[in-house]
Amino acid sequence: MARRYDSSTTTFSPEGRLHQVEYAIEAINNAGTCVGLRCSDGLILASERKVTSKLLAPVKTSEKTYKISDECVLSVAGLSSDASILIGQARLEAQRYLYQYGEPMPVEQIVTQICNYKQSYTQYGGLRPFGCAFLFAGYDTFHGMQLYQTDPSGNFSGWQATVIGANNSSGKSFLKNEYNKDDAGIPDVNSGLKLAVKCLNKTMDSSGNGPEKYELFVMREKEGGGVEHKTLTKEEVKEIIDKVEEEGKAAADA
Amino acid sequence: MARRYDSSTTTFSPEGRLHQVEYAIEAINNAGTCVGLRCSDGLILASERKVTSKLLAPVKTSEKTYKISDECVLSVAGLSSDASILIGQARLEAQRYLYQYGEPMPVEQIVTQICNYKQSYTQYGGLRPFGCAFLFAGYDTFHGMQLYQTDPSGNFSGWQATVIGANNSSGKSFLKNEYNKDDAGIPDVNSGLKLAVKCLNKTMDSSGNGPEKYELFVMREKEGGGVEHKTLTKEEVKEIIDKVEEEGKAAADA
Amino acid sequence: MARRYDSSTTTFSPEGRLHQVEYAIEAINNAGTCVGLRCSDGLILASERKVTSKLLAPVKTSEKTYKISDECVLSVAGLSSDASILIGQARLEAQRYLYQYGEPMPVEQIVTQICNYKQSYTQYGGLRPFGCAFLFAGYDTFHGMQLYQTDPSGNFSGWQATVIGANNSSGKSFLKNEYNKDDAGIPDVNSGLKLAVKCLNKTMDSSGNGPEKYELFVMREKEGGGVEHKTLTKEEVKEIIDKVEEEGKAAADA
Amino acid sequence: MARRYDSSTTTFSPEGRLHQVEYAIEAINNAGTCVGLRCSDGLILASERKVTSKLLAPVKTSEKTYKISDECVLSVAGLSSDASILIGQARLEAQRYLYQYGEPMPVEQIVTQICNYKQSYTQYGGLRPFGCAFLFAGYDTFHGMQLYQTDPSGNFSGWQATVIGANNSSGKSFLKNEYNKDDAGIPDVNSGLKLAVKCLNKTMDSSGNGPEKYELFVMREKEGGGVEHKTLTKEEVKEIIDKVEEEGKAAADA
Amino acid sequence: MARRYDSSTTTFSPEGRLHQVEYAIEAINNAGTCVGLRCSDGLILASERKVTSKLLAPVKTSEKTYKISDECVLSVAGLSSDASILIGQARLEAQRYLYQYGEPMPVEQIVTQICNYKQSYTQYGGLRPFGCAFLFAGYDTFHGMQLYQTDPSGNFSGWQATVIGANNSSGKSFLKNEYNKDDAGIPDVNSGLKLAVKCLNKTMDSSGNGPEKYELFVMREKEGGGVEHKTLTKEEVKEIIDKVEEEGKAAADA
Amino acid sequence: MARRYDSSTTTFSPEGRLHQVEYAIEAINNAGTCVGLRCSDGLILASERKVTSKLLAPVKTSEKTYKISDECVLSVAGLSSDASILIGQARLEAQRYLYQYGEPMPVEQIVTQICNYKQSYTQYGGLRPFGCAFLFAGYDTFHGMQLYQTDPSGNFSGWQATVIGANNSSGKSFLKNEYNKDDAGIPDVNSGLKLAVKCLNKTMDSSGNGPEKYELFVMREKEGGGVEHKTLTKEEVKEIIDKVEEEGKAAADA
Amino acid sequence: MARRYDSSTTTFSPEGRLHQVEYAIEAINNAGTCVGLRCSDGLILASERKVTSKLLAPVKTSEKTYKISDECVLSVAGLSSDASILIGQARLEAQRYLYQYGEPMPVEQIVTQICNYKQSYTQYGGLRPFGCAFLFAGYDTFHGMQLYQTDPSGNFSGWQATVIGANNSSGKSFLKNEYNKDDAGIPDVNSGLKLAVKCLNKTMDSSGNGPEKYELFVMREKEGGGVEHKTLTKEEVKEIIDKVEEEGKAAADA
Repeated sequence: MARRYDSSTTTFSPEGRLHQVEYAIEAINNAGTCVGLRCSDGLILASERKVTSKLLAPVKTSEKTYKISDECVLSVAGLSSDASILIGQARLEAQRYLYQYGEPMPVEQIVTQICNYKQSYTQYGGLRPFGCAFLFAGYDTFHGMQLYQTDPSGNFSGWQATVIGANNSSGKSFLKNEYNKDDAGIPDVNSGLKLAVKCLNKTMDSSGNGPEKYELFVMREKEGGGVEHKTLTKEEVKEIIDKVEEEGKAAADA
Repeated sequence: MARRYDSSTTTFSPEGRLHQVEYAIEAINNAGTCVGLRCSDGLILASERKVTSKLLAPVKTSEKTYKISDECVLSVAGLSSDASILIGQARLEAQRYLYQYGEPMPVEQIVTQICNYKQSYTQYGGLRPFGCAFLFAGYDTFHGMQLYQTDPSGNFSGWQATVIGANNSSGKSFLKNEYNKDDAGIPDVNSGLKLAVKCLNKTMDSSGNGPEKYELFVMREKEGGGVEHKTLTKEEVKEIIDKVEEEGKAAADA
Repeated sequence: MARRYDSSTTTFSPEGRLHQVEYAIEAINNAGTCVGLRCSDGLILASERKVTSKLLAPVKTSEKTYKISDECVLSVAGLSSDASILIGQARLEAQRYLYQYGEPMPVEQIVTQICNYKQSYTQYGGLRPFGCAFLFAGYDTFHGMQLYQTDPSGNFSGWQATVIGANNSSGKSFLKNEYNKDDAGIPDVNSGLKLAVKCLNKTMDSSGNGPEKYELFVMREKEGGGVEHKTLTKEEVKEIIDKVEEEGKAAADA
Repeated sequence: MARRYDSSTTTFSPEGRLHQVEYAIEAINNAGTCVGLRCSDGLILASERKVTSKLLAPVKTSEKTYKISDECVLSVAGLSSDASILIGQARLEAQRYLYQYGEPMPVEQIVTQICNYKQSYTQYGGLRPFGCAFLFAGYDTFHGMQLYQTDPSGNFSGWQATVIGANNSSGKSFLKNEYNKDDAGIPDVNSGLKLAVKCLNKTMDSSGNGPEKYELFVMREKEGGGVEHKTLTKEEVKEIIDKVEEEGKAAADA
Repeated sequence: MARRYDSSTTTFSPEGRLHQVEYAIEAINNAGTCVGLRCSDGLILASERKVTSKLLAPVKTSEKTYKISDECVLSVAGLSSDASILIGQARLEAQRYLYQYGEPMPVEQIVTQICNYKQSYTQYGGLRPFGCAFLFAGYDTFHGMQLYQTDPSGNFSGWQATVIGANNSSGKSFLKNEYNKDDAGIPDVNSGLKLAVKCLNKTMDSSGNGPEKYELFVMREKEGGGVEHKTLTKEEVKEIIDKVEEEGKAAADA
Repeated sequence: MARRYDSSTTTFSPEGRLHQVEYAIEAINNAGTCVGLRCSDGLILASERKVTSKLLAPVKTSEKTYKISDECVLSVAGLSSDASILIGQARLEAQRYLYQYGEPMPVEQIVTQICNYKQSYTQYGGLRPFGCAFLFAGYDTFHGMQLYQTDPSGNFSGWQATVIGANNSSGKSFLKNEYNKDDAGIPDVNSGLKLAVKCLNKTMDSSGNGPEKYELFVMREKEGGGVEHKTLTKEEVKEIIDKVEEEGKAAADA
Repeated sequence: MARRYDSSTTTFSPEGRLHQVEYAIEAINNAGTCVGLRCSDGLILASERKVTSKLLAPVKTSEKTYKISDECVLSVAGLSSDASILIGQARLEAQRYLYQYGEPMPVEQIVTQICNYKQSYTQYGGLRPFGCAFLFAGYDTFHGMQLYQTDPSGNFSGWQATVIGANNSSGKSFLKNEYNKDDAGIPDVNSGLKLAVKCLNKTMDSSGNGPEKYELFVMREKEGGGVEHKTLTKEEVKEIIDKVEEEGKAAADA
């Protein structure tokens, strides 16, 4: 019945829905999962690297996490060629702001601009929505560490902890139980990394994956202002996976 | 039968209707409810926060109410990414006016400009109407406190008290009975806030909601001219909910 | 059979008709009625206010009658958001003319320009006709008081007395009988107002409406040149309704 | 079978026809009739005023005949809002020529320019043909008095006597018999007016119409060069109708 | 089967055909016939005037033959409103060339430019091909007298003798037999005119037509360089028709 | 099944094919054949003149072979009106290069530019591919004599000997056997001309054609640099045909 | 079922897929195979020349491998006319960078720009994706030798060894077994060439092909900085094929 409304991006269905946006979201739900966590002393973005092959060139810096400015980073779920356009746009906006005002662009302002850009692709004819969602991790002096999630409609929202991509709903319900469990407080980065890996394990198809399947990114406030961030090395990732496995066995034994 | 006319925004149906505009209105009728009330000493915008989760970041300022200028505020029902475009447009117009004439833009002029902008998206091909409705609350020296409601067609109208979003008709009929009951006079802000919460309760799916589900905004004339406005804190909201509940019990007991 | 031609504004049907224009006219036939009357000493525009609610803000100036220039006023039947665009256009044209030539724009010239603008929306692809009709009441030194009616096709015509909007045909046939009855002469404004109210009563769905349902506008030549015009207050309207009612009863008794 | 080709203006049917142009011509065939006659001492344009009502404002100058320049006049059959655009265009061209060359634009040149303009609306996508035909009556020093007929395709042709609009074929066959009957010579304006009224009577739906149904226009060469033209007053029209009626009765009696 | 390809001008059918161009050619095949002949001492263009009526204005110069420049003339078969656009274009090009280089534009260059213009209307969307064919008769100092035929696709070719329009194939096969019969040499203009009239008679629907049905045009080299050309008067045409008739009778008697 | 993909130029079929390009190639396969041969001392382009008629004007220079610059010539198979646009484009490019750099444009560069131009007509909406293929014969100081073939997709390739147009596959298989037979070496121009005529005979529908059916073009390096090229006269063509016929008989007798 | 979504490039299917991009990839899977290998001392691009004929002109430099800048080369699988546009674009970007910054453009930056360009053809209406994939081989001072693969969606990825074009999956699985077998280390260029030829043999339809079917390209770091690259001559290719054959026999004997 609703078939007539779903191939045009500029048409509402009788129920007031935009089918093309929903299909674009579908494209994201098949993509590699990303987990975002606010910790007491920083932010974590953890992503699954979906395709791995011996023949692939070794990862140079990161595959799923892109630096927008010194204080803002995003990770991608969905069509990476679509994302590339938006990332370029975001970098340009952030640098223009820095150049014009002499201070870093506030994180929410970057997110708003990219989302307005996304929105326009849902309203005008002859276009399709961008088939990608982002997790933005950023820092500014107004609101400190911030974590945002965007979707193809141009919507965004701020989160403490969230999941996008494949199986994001099971990931989210895992986080709902484990993050700030029993109001014990927000985890620090170290236990947050373990939580993120556990959450990714919940959403992955197979278990027992090697460290090349995980991309872990950490942003921390620097002493004296500003932030430092880095993508963990293969060895560091390995160490965390091993700990998670041990804890898992210990819990199973218990 | 009327199916042929409903996927194009630039086509009348034989009955002289614009189906796309009606479908866009449908999108709004599924969105979180907003209540607007003119009080004897101010204006109230009360909105339902539809999605709540422990994992969401704590609300910074407000989620549903947006400041356009010092004297004008709106709250949104519908697609928030569509609304974002219009809000940006409204802010720009208001600031341009302020800059050019050195005085705040009259409220009705802001509303007219945004509605003309909305109208153009219903008449030209390759576009869809904006899927959002607004409640504008504003003040100017010509007409004092004013409350306007807009819809996706570009229509607007001034109200004493109105409701947009999900279940707006049951909300409206509640207000018709309770607002200025027995011509007892327009309520003041304090009793208006309770009325607004009661009205939102009528339109919500579940009862006994916590304060995080309500966003209450108040605009008051300042002594010495101008207006002050604020979004109530969680504690202030809690207090009002509790009073409403008490009154409810008292009434039930009576 | 004719269905194939009715969803495109730029296509004639085999009978040489433009269906979209006819459907736009249909949209007007569902709108609040407007009556226009030329009187011996002025012009009357009388409109029905279709939606009334206790919750609506009190009418500031007028709801259906819009001033274009000091000498020209129009009242609207149809989609008010569409009308808003055309009213803005008409005001601009009238002010430009005044600025450029130092004298008011002749009424027919305003009407012609707005109608050419309307026509273009019936001939080019990717547009729909404007879904509104106007009654123009104006004065210039060439032709004195003038009353014009326009429709969505861009057609216009000058009238002594006419009706647009819902039930306009029964309104017109009423006027045909009562206006200048037995060639007794054109009514003056006072009896014209009663005639207009009677005519509106013929077209309204219910009888015994309060004064808030009527909007009565009068334009009179000023002594010493120029015109004065005003929208009648609620009290003035009430007075006329009462007189009409009395006359009705008197006639029924007779 | 030919249905597929008739809703696009830029498509030939397999028989090499342009259906949209033919449908536009159909629109003209339902419009009020216009008769054009070349007389020994001038030109006549006679038109039927289709809609008449007691409520209509009295005709100011003329309803169907429009002055393009001092030497060129046209009368319209078809959609008057479409015609308005072309008349404006023709006036502009004629004045530009006058301004640039200091002498009146030759009649055929005006006609050619308007027809080229019409043609373009039959060849490009997203447009429809103009739904109106014209009779051009004009004078220039090269070819003297001239009478042209145009149609929506952009075709035009010079005539001694012709008819456009409703029932034009029966009008034309009447003229074929009566105009220059038995090669008795071209009629002068006085007998031409009677001929034109008789011809209009043939095409009208009802007989015995009052003078308000006829619009008679005469263009005569002035002594000393140039032309004078006027639309006949109601009284003059009445006189001619009466004469025609008398002659009719006389002929019937004979 | 091939129906899907014939309503778009920018689409090949599976057999590699452009249906719209073929349909436009069909439009020409219903139009009045034109015959072109190269003679030993000049060029002849002979055309059928399809519509004739006592009421038509007497032909001023010519109806089917249009002067492009002093040395180039064309005659038209097909939609004359389409042709008008191309003729205007050709005149402009020819005058620009003359102005720029101080000598007449070579005939083939005019033809090429017009044909490139025609071609573009077959390749871009939202357009239809021009529904007219031309016979170009021209003279330049490079190639002397030349005769070209163009069609709606933008193709053109040089001919000794050819026919376009209705029944062109029977006209062509007549010419194949009679033109340069038994290699007796190219006819001179006098016998060429008779040949052209005979050829037109073959293609006309009825026989025994009066001179008003024929338009005969002759271009001759002037002594001392340049060309002279003229359209034959009604009397001259009459004379030729009579001769042709006599010859016909003589042949029938023989 | 594949029908849905073949009427749009900008759509791949599920097998990854562009149907419109294939249909355009079909248009070429119905066109007159062209043969290109590289010889030891020059290049040969031999073309079939498909339509011949006694009534056609005698060929001025050549009908199928067009000079682009002094060193580059092409022959056409397919729609000659489409080809005309591309030839004009190629000449412009070649002259611009010559003007800008003071030396002839390299052949491959001309070919590349024309092919990029062709490609763009296969990728953008609202266009159709050019329905023509070319054989480019050219000379430059970098690569000497070169022979290229292009098709409507914008592909091109360099050849020693090739055939385009009707029956090109049987022509190609003839060349595969006869050209450089038994590795006896590339033929010189004299024997190449005979080979080309034999190859055309293979692809023609009828045998025993007169010299007016053949267009033979030869390009030779001039002593002292540069090239000379000419189209053979009717007598020269006749001589070659006769030789080919003799050889054919001699071979048949043997 | 999914048929409705596959002919528009700007529409997602309900599963979130872009059919047109998948069909374009299909076009590549029918094209000649390309193999790319990173070696310990350089890079290898090995391509199959799909069409070979005695009549083709001898290859001038290379047929499938195109130089973008001194440090960057690509080889093509898919529609070569589409590729030509992108290659031109890439060369322009690389030269602009060199001119602006005085140093070679980093390889990944070239790849990103071309891929963003490709992406835009998948998102806007009225376009189709580019039907070609590339292997980029390049060198810069930041990351040394690099090998990238792109596809029509605008995606790209870095590889140690990869295959595009026909039968790329069987080629890839061959490489997965043979490249860096038993972690014996990356091969040097000499053994890499043999590996590439073996890999091409796996993907070709027939076996025992001559050297004209292979195009082998090698890029090596120069002593003193920079890179040198060359396409192997027919003799060098022959030598490698022979060695591969010998090794094959030896292995078979073993």
